[in-house]
Amino acid sequence: MLEARVRSIFEKARFVEELGMKLVKVSEGSVETELAIRDSFRQQHGFIHAGVIATLGDHTAGGAARTVTGEKDVITIEFKINFLRPAKSDKLKCVARVLRGGKQIVVAEAEIFDVDGKEGKLVAKLTETLAVIEARD
Amino acid sequence: MLEARVRSIFEKARFVEELGMKLVKVSEGSVETELAIRDSFRQQHGFIHAGVIATLGDHTAGGAARTVTGEKDVITIEFKINFLRPAKSDKLKCVARVLRGGKQIVVAEAEIFDVDGKEGKLVAKLTETLAVIEARD
Amino acid sequence: MLEARVRSIFEKARFVEELGMKLVKVSEGSVETELAIRDSFRQQHGFIHAGVIATLGDHTAGGAARTVTGEKDVITIEFKINFLRPAKSDKLKCVARVLRGGKQIVVAEAEIFDVDGKEGKLVAKLTETLAVIEARD
Amino acid sequence: MLEARVRSIFEKARFVEELGMKLVKVSEGSVETELAIRDSFRQQHGFIHAGVIATLGDHTAGGAARTVTGEKDVITIEFKINFLRPAKSDKLKCVARVLRGGKQIVVAEAEIFDVDGKEGKLVAKLTETLAVIEARD
Repeated sequence: MLEARVRSIFEKARFVEELGMKLVKVSEGSVETELAIRDSFRQQHGFIHAGVIATLGDHTAGGAARTVTGEKDVITIEFKINFLRPAKSDKLKCVARVLRGGKQIVVAEAEIFDVDGKEGKLVAKLTETLAVIEARD
Repeated sequence: MLEARVRSIFEKARFVEELGMKLVKVSEGSVETELAIRDSFRQQHGFIHAGVIATLGDHTAGGAARTVTGEKDVITIEFKINFLRPAKSDKLKCVARVLRGGKQIVVAEAEIFDVDGKEGKLVAKLTETLAVIEARD
Repeated sequence: MLEARVRSIFEKARFVEELGMKLVKVSEGSVETELAIRDSFRQQHGFIHAGVIATLGDHTAGGAARTVTGEKDVITIEFKINFLRPAKSDKLKCVARVLRGGKQIVVAEAEIFDVDGKEGKLVAKLTETLAVIEARD
Repeated sequence: MLEARVRSIFEKARFVEELGMKLVKVSEGSVETELAIRDSFRQQHGFIHAGVIATLGDHTAGGAARTVTGEKDVITIEFKINFLRPAKSDKLKCVARVLRGGKQIVVAEAEIFDVDGKEGKLVAKLTETLAVIEARD
């Protein structure tokens, strides 16, 4: 049921659905996603565009937040992201977790990894504040 | 020449080019862009996805930074964005300006407006740090 | 009355009162403050400590937010600050304004100037989110 | 020697020295500090002022960054902090670690805990970018 709630956020959000973001794992307070990189996701230096990485981090953090709000929904009110290394490979992985789940405000963080071969390298870290809102089903 | 430098950032960055981001105005320390909204840019509530707005803000801020670095190029090292109101209309406008242009670091800010009818409503504000790097070709 | 509300935030907050932060101007959506720099506010390079500048920015942004919440009070839930130049002089000035005043969330920004002689130089810029809470008089 | 380098940052920074910030642990890429809370550190609701928490987080993150830059020094160029819960007790603890140590840029994060009795409660999380600079004297 937790997974169904989070999955609906991913399926109904056309922008991330068309990017190809995949929901990999859901547990209370945590969500993991993956994104296969297309050539069209790159910027002028051949690296994955900051906007793609930010979108992945934001939406995964939102998914994690959604696991702690019961029937209520969430909406991003701000995020900050540090880009630690250029991301170059063909797949990104993102792991997000809730730092604080309140009745009106949820704070979550997300780490984005460039998956090259077996292991991932941390390429970005995001922290995000979300407002808890009524679900509109 | 200033415009040519900035234009090249927009043309070579496939992600923003495919989104359809348009360069509208370039002057020293400032850049203005526009983005026509497609249905595929929306999220689960029908609003424009935070990732789209962040991408527009980041790339426009990067364009503004590029106007003050001469032959050198820039790369985003972090940004923070506050979402002030849900963005719902068919067009976004973004105005970015440089707050501080240094030899190694440039700081810029961007305001994103939802253009509905004549006037725009401020929907998001971003501040960003960029590193100055050697241009490649 | 607007000024009385904001003034109470400054007088009752011992930390900023002991630092010596002065309220200079109050209008709806905007507050201006000043801080005379003591030697004890500096860090290891002789510059004004980032923590002093952040405190000034945060509290002034909170003051601006307080001008748009009527009987309600505000509390900071996050802020981000970019340091643009080392601050070295004997006085800082801060101007904050509300970007968005909602019922539950207020977003404000603050610019901090190093006042050296007649004019100020922008040394830092902060954006902040505050939650609107019940006043506890 | 690592500890001596970090200790000098704490001893020479008058602002944090006068606040009473104590260096507790130093290892490569990580620093832990403590701060005993005085009544003068509180704000209008009796909570510890956001500026105190931010100063602790910033300076501890700077200490962690200093462990990975050899003979070079560091200076904060930006930070963002989320306040997760009101901090009320008599002692704060802060643990910072380096996320990415580069030649020109270091990114670190810090968690601040309100230490009440045995265990600490996470009250704030900060991420920070620092520039690597030449050491003076």
